[in-house]
Amino acid sequence: MLERVETIMKQLVDEVGYSEVSKLFNTLSGGKRLRAKLIFKIASTHKDAPLLGAIVELIHAASLLHDDVIDDAALRRGKASVNATEGSKTAIMLGDILYSKGFSSLVAFDKEIAQTIANSVTALSKGEMMDVAMAESFNDDAQSYLEMLYFKTATLIEAAAKSAALLEGKDADSYALYGKNLGLSFQIIDDILDIVSDEATLGKPALNDYVEGKCTLPYIYLYHDLQDSDKQKLKSLHKKSLSEDDSLWIKSKMKKHKSIERSFSLARKLSDEAVSCVDDIELKEIIETMMKRTF
Amino acid sequence: MLERVETIMKQLVDEVGYSEVSKLFNTLSGGKRLRAKLIFKIASTHKDAPLLGAIVELIHAASLLHDDVIDDAALRRGKASVNATEGSKTAIMLGDILYSKGFSSLVAFDKEIAQTIANSVTALSKGEMMDVAMAESFNDDAQSYLEMLYFKTATLIEAAAKSAALLEGKDADSYALYGKNLGLSFQIIDDILDIVSDEATLGKPALNDYVEGKCTLPYIYLYHDLQDSDKQKLKSLHKKSLSEDDSLWIKSKMKKHKSIERSFSLARKLSDEAVSCVDDIELKEIIETMMKRTF
Repeated sequence: MLERVETIMKQLVDEVGYSEVSKLFNTLSGGKRLRAKLIFKIASTHKDAPLLGAIVELIHAASLLHDDVIDDAALRRGKASVNATEGSKTAIMLGDILYSKGFSSLVAFDKEIAQTIANSVTALSKGEMMDVAMAESFNDDAQSYLEMLYFKTATLIEAAAKSAALLEGKDADSYALYGKNLGLSFQIIDDILDIVSDEATLGKPALNDYVEGKCTLPYIYLYHDLQDSDKQKLKSLHKKSLSEDDSLWIKSKMKKHKSIERSFSLARKLSDEAVSCVDDIELKEIIETMMKRTF
Repeated sequence: MLERVETIMKQLVDEVGYSEVSKLFNTLSGGKRLRAKLIFKIASTHKDAPLLGAIVELIHAASLLHDDVIDDAALRRGKASVNATEGSKTAIMLGDILYSKGFSSLVAFDKEIAQTIANSVTALSKGEMMDVAMAESFNDDAQSYLEMLYFKTATLIEAAAKSAALLEGKDADSYALYGKNLGLSFQIIDDILDIVSDEATLGKPALNDYVEGKCTLPYIYLYHDLQDSDKQKLKSLHKKSLSEDDSLWIKSKMKKHKSIERSFSLARKLSDEAVSCVDDIELKEIIETMMKRTF
């Protein structure tokens, strides 16, 4: 089924009618195609599920192209990013083309589906802006961090699940909540892996989020558990390149205060809630696989 | 009527629910709102004309934000560009938000209208990419230059006119052709003004297009009229900062070979064709005002 999505994505990109775009698109590595997989599982019998999956994955690819420009990311899925190899301008333009091709293909669907996906794209662009704004200074508010995660990561997964449910005539709200919680816990696990994995596994330095200014959940939890002097020390390391000693200090404090465990517990709680929304063994498996991933 | 468009644009942006975005949006200068004006003239009695105008202008604003990042433009409509004052990343993110908000508001319209506008956005992103690719080396092919102009500039104006005609139940093809030719001649006039206007009027150095690598129509016409040695000289100046002497040489050669007049004649021919498509005194006036503009 995922092959069908890849084929349709290529067809949509070819329809743009610019060989340079098709060539560039073919160099992108596709990733897990989590959003398309979700759509298949939820709208498994509907003939338009592959098209919807392809559209959502095109939009997701566009958002990653722009994210990598905004974050100056050199790598994406272990490969050099488009902004690194072709320059930021090409990455911006390719992103614009994939976004707009995704949007214009969306018109084939019912208004509620088109609206659901389109709204989520506004939300994810807003989430990216919030993410950048929040990385300017140290943020110790878990609530505003989770709100940003919702917009930046969860909203498109929520929209994918909801629109697939609409397509298949299933209960849209339950699947939307499933998608939202899957997206939130997915990102929390990602944030944890940035701390607990080694550089070889991550394909980037560990604690990279904090170096880039991103106060993810473990840092926020840790901050509130520290004495005043350590609070100041943690803050002083924010957005700095970290020495070996600094990294070890952060990790040992997190170990002591169980910051990773607390973050994982929240991901678990959200996942459990997701699982309770839908009576579907395969969707439960997606959650479990995601919770257990190590990269 | 244009005030109504401004109000709706602000409302749509406020709906995004992020005060930073509203604040940034309010700093943009609106420009001529040519596309919204066209929509009003064509769908003058339809209650949704202001919303359609607002959507198209949001999309146009988004495309300018990204264009200015891609072209490293410091000025937009005589003011510092967003990328110049807030940085490229903010300009990219604001553009993404305006694009996606425009798209998601489009869902309220009939499929044919939504499709028309959405397709034109893919085309304009493709046009921007073609523009950048063509500026890499000297291009002497008028046909491929005009094709790029169509995608980059004319397609959204064509879509605005066509979708307004669809809204009002007028002949879509005639209005589409009007919009296409208006867009093409608008851009040809723009290219001419870059050569004949002075720096004070343009708000940027004259011959700036050529310095940036853009071989506009007058340069293409001139190239084919020159002797071999002058052909080489013109090529050697491409994408270089021009001395006073170089600029004077180009302008004197263009004068001798009537390159500006030939370009203007094509704009005139396209405008006349536009006027012949539609039996509407106000649309004819838009064309005439555009043809006579000096900035």
